[in-house]
Amino acid sequence: MTEHEGHGGHEGHGYSGDKARYLARLKRIEGQARGIHRMVEEDQYCIDVLTQISAVTSALRGVALALLDDHLEHCVADAAAAGGAEADAKLKEASAAIARLVRS
Amino acid sequence: MTEHEGHGGHEGHGYSGDKARYLARLKRIEGQARGIHRMVEEDQYCIDVLTQISAVTSALRGVALALLDDHLEHCVADAAAAGGAEADAKLKEASAAIARLVRS
Repeated sequence: MTEHEGHGGHEGHGYSGDKARYLARLKRIEGQARGIHRMVEEDQYCIDVLTQISAVTSALRGVALALLDDHLEHCVADAAAAGGAEADAKLKEASAAIARLVRS
Repeated sequence: MTEHEGHGGHEGHGYSGDKARYLARLKRIEGQARGIHRMVEEDQYCIDVLTQISAVTSALRGVALALLDDHLEHCVADAAAAGGAEADAKLKEASAAIARLVRS
């Protein structure tokens, strides 16, 4: 897990305001992932399985981009306003997460 | 669902030989998706949630690429060997699936 000084024991994150909506989206993604497993189990056609995988990947990417937006707007913007080493660390951390997302 | 003449009622697909392995990978992905939901529920740090989303996206992409390989090696290659309209249709179908995957 990432070290994030200034957030230890902090229950509010960038996504806290929309938590219920994120949970609902993630619940749906869980169901879709279960659906892919079921499709392979039932020997469904390769192309149909691929279509479902593309749908889940898109849904995950949508959640990731929304989380990233919230994170930049809250955690990173707050740190940047405060300035100093913490601001720098938050920006570097966010850049690395974006790079992982683009590569994934 | 996609129409796939010549595959209706056919229980063997490109991935049939490796089905158990695909099912195990998809089971793991299901667990990882459940993990993302749990992380948000427990208010874990945005960047850690993003890292987990990247991991699941990578795992899904790995399964998709393997499925696509199997599909090209079996279904598409067989159709191409037989020639005719079916060969053409299979190639077009595979191209569209690849495009969806790249966009997702």
